Amino acid sequence: MDHLILILELFGTAAFSVSGAMAAIHRKLDLFGVIFCACITALGGGVLRDMLLGILPPKMFTNYLYLAVAGAAALITFLLAKPVIEAEKNSRSIFIAGFIFDTAGLCVFTIIGMNIAISSGYFSNPFFVVFLGMTTGCGGGILRDILLRRIPLVFSKHVYAVASILGGIIYMLLLSLTSVSDTAAIAISMGAIFLIRSLAAYFRWNLPKAV
Amino acid sequence: MDHLILILELFGTAAFSVSGAMAAIHRKLDLFGVIFCACITALGGGVLRDMLLGILPPKMFTNYLYLAVAGAAALITFLLAKPVIEAEKNSRSIFIAGFIFDTAGLCVFTIIGMNIAISSGYFSNPFFVVFLGMTTGCGGGILRDILLRRIPLVFSKHVYAVASILGGIIYMLLLSLTSVSDTAAIAISMGAIFLIRSLAAYFRWNLPKAV
Amino acid sequence: MDHLILILELFGTAAFSVSGAMAAIHRKLDLFGVIFCACITALGGGVLRDMLLGILPPKMFTNYLYLAVAGAAALITFLLAKPVIEAEKNSRSIFIAGFIFDTAGLCVFTIIGMNIAISSGYFSNPFFVVFLGMTTGCGGGILRDILLRRIPLVFSKHVYAVASILGGIIYMLLLSLTSVSDTAAIAISMGAIFLIRSLAAYFRWNLPKAV
Repeated sequence: MDHLILILELFGTAAFSVSGAMAAIHRKLDLFGVIFCACITALGGGVLRDMLLGILPPKMFTNYLYLAVAGAAALITFLLAKPVIEAEKNSRSIFIAGFIFDTAGLCVFTIIGMNIAISSGYFSNPFFVVFLGMTTGCGGGILRDILLRRIPLVFSKHVYAVASILGGIIYMLLLSLTSVSDTAAIAISMGAIFLIRSLAAYFRWNLPKAV
Repeated sequence: MDHLILILELFGTAAFSVSGAMAAIHRKLDLFGVIFCACITALGGGVLRDMLLGILPPKMFTNYLYLAVAGAAALITFLLAKPVIEAEKNSRSIFIAGFIFDTAGLCVFTIIGMNIAISSGYFSNPFFVVFLGMTTGCGGGILRDILLRRIPLVFSKHVYAVASILGGIIYMLLLSLTSVSDTAAIAISMGAIFLIRSLAAYFRWNLPKAV
Repeated sequence: MDHLILILELFGTAAFSVSGAMAAIHRKLDLFGVIFCACITALGGGVLRDMLLGILPPKMFTNYLYLAVAGAAALITFLLAKPVIEAEKNSRSIFIAGFIFDTAGLCVFTIIGMNIAISSGYFSNPFFVVFLGMTTGCGGGILRDILLRRIPLVFSKHVYAVASILGGIIYMLLLSLTSVSDTAAIAISMGAIFLIRSLAAYFRWNLPKAV
C-alpha cells in the first residue's frame, strides 16, 4: 500500500506540475516562469498546509523527490509544448488523460494532507483535518491562479474543492466510526473523490449560483 | 465588557462575511466560492496575524464559533442575494447598514488583534502591536480582493487602514501613558476608529495622491 | 565588511522601496497605498523567508531600521513623484540609476537571505539555502505585483530570479569547495549576480519560451 501511495503521489505531483506548466505556457511565460509556476502548483498546497501546521521548513525542503518530479515534469512539458498544444486542438484523449491525472492528484493529495494533519496530533479536530486535506489538494492551484492573475478556478469549476471536502469527510467517518483497515479507508475515500469529481464533470454538475 | 466584546466580535465577523459574500456574488461565483470567499474575508486577517505571531494552528481552527458565524452569514447572504441586490438599487439604508457593520468589524478586529499581540508578550514592541491590529482588521479584505482579482480596496478607500492605525496608536498611548481602565481604553479607541472612518466617509476625505 | 554589507543592505532596501512606490504611483494609489506597497516590496521577501524558516515574528518586526529606511524612501518618492516622472520621460540616466540600485538590492538581499538560512542551521541543505536567497531577493517584488494585479515581472523579466539563483549557487560552491574567506565569497557572488543581470539587460537576453 505504501508503495502504491508513493506512486500515486508522484503521479499527482507530475500531473499538477503539468497543469501549472501548461497554464504558464498559455500565458507566454519564459522557461523560468513555467518551471516556477509548475512547482508552485504541484508543491504549494503542501507548503500552505505545513505553514498552517507549523511544520517549518515545509516538508518539500527536506525531501526533494517531489520537487525533482515536479521540475522534470515541467521541463518535459516545456519541451513538448508545441506538439501537445497542436494535439489538444484535434483530440479529446489528451484532455481526458489530463483530467484523470489531475483528479488522481486531488485524491492522493487530499488524503495525504489529512494523514499529515492526523499524525501531527489533530485527529480530535476533524474540521481542521478536512480543511488541511482540501488545502493540500487545492492550494497549489489557487496559488497558480493568483500568480497568473486568474480568479481561482476552484471557485467556479464543477465541484472540485467540494469533492475533496466530501472525500475528506468520508475518510474521517470511516476512521472514527468503523473498524475498516487504514488501507481500505484510504482506498474508499480516494475512490469517492474520484467518482464525485468524474460524475460532476461528466454530467456538468454545477453548484448553484446566487443570481 | 467581555460579553460586549464577544457580541461585537460576532457582529464584525458576520459583517465581514457578508461583505466577502456580496463581492463573490457580484463576481458570479458559485455557492462554494461565495462561502469560501466570505470566510476568507471574515477570518483571513486573524489567520495572517497568527501566522506572523507563530500561533500555529491559527486560532480559527481551535474555536469554531467564528467560522460557524461566518459560514451562516455567508449562506444567508447567498439565499437572500436577489432581494438584497434589488433593494441596494432603491435604498440607501442597506448601504448604510453595511457600512456600520463593516466599520464595527474594523474597530473590534483592530483592538482584538492588538490584545492578542499584547498577550503574546509584545507590549514593548508597539509598532508590531499596531501592525497586527491593522492586519487583523484589514487582512481579510486584502485576501478577498486578491482572490477576486481586484486591487485591494484598502489601497484606495477613504482612510480605512489609516483609521485602524490611528485607533491602534490611541489604544497604545492610553495603555502606556494613562491610568484609564482597560475597558475605557478599548471603548475610547474603538470609538475613535469608528469616528475617523465615519467622518472620512461622510466628508469624502481622501489621502493625497502623488500625481 | 560588515559596515559595507549594512550600507549595501540599506541601499537595497531603499531601492526596492522606491521601485514599489513608483509602481504604486503609476497605479494612482494614495499616500497610504504607496507607502504600504513600497514597504511590502522592500521587506516582503524577508518576511516570506522568515515565515518559511519559522523565525516568528519576522525580523522586520524586531529591528525597525529597515522599515524606517523603506518608509522614508517611499515618502521621498511620493513627494518627488511629479518631477521624477517628468524626468523619466526625458532622460535615460534616472532609469539607469534605478537599475543599478535595484540590482544592488537583488545582490545583497540574495546573499543576506542565504546567510540567515545558513545561520539557522541549513548549510547542509543547499537547495533550501539558495531558494531562500531567491525568496529574499525576489519575494517582495512578487508580492508587489500580486497586490497591484500584475503578472509577476520576475516571470518575464530578463533573467532576474535566474541571476539570483546562479549567484546563490556560486556562493554555496565557494563556501563548500574552496577556502576563500567569507568576505571574498560574498564579494564574488554578489559581483556575479550584478554582472549576470547587467549583461542580460544590456544584451536583452531572454530565457526561451515554449511557443
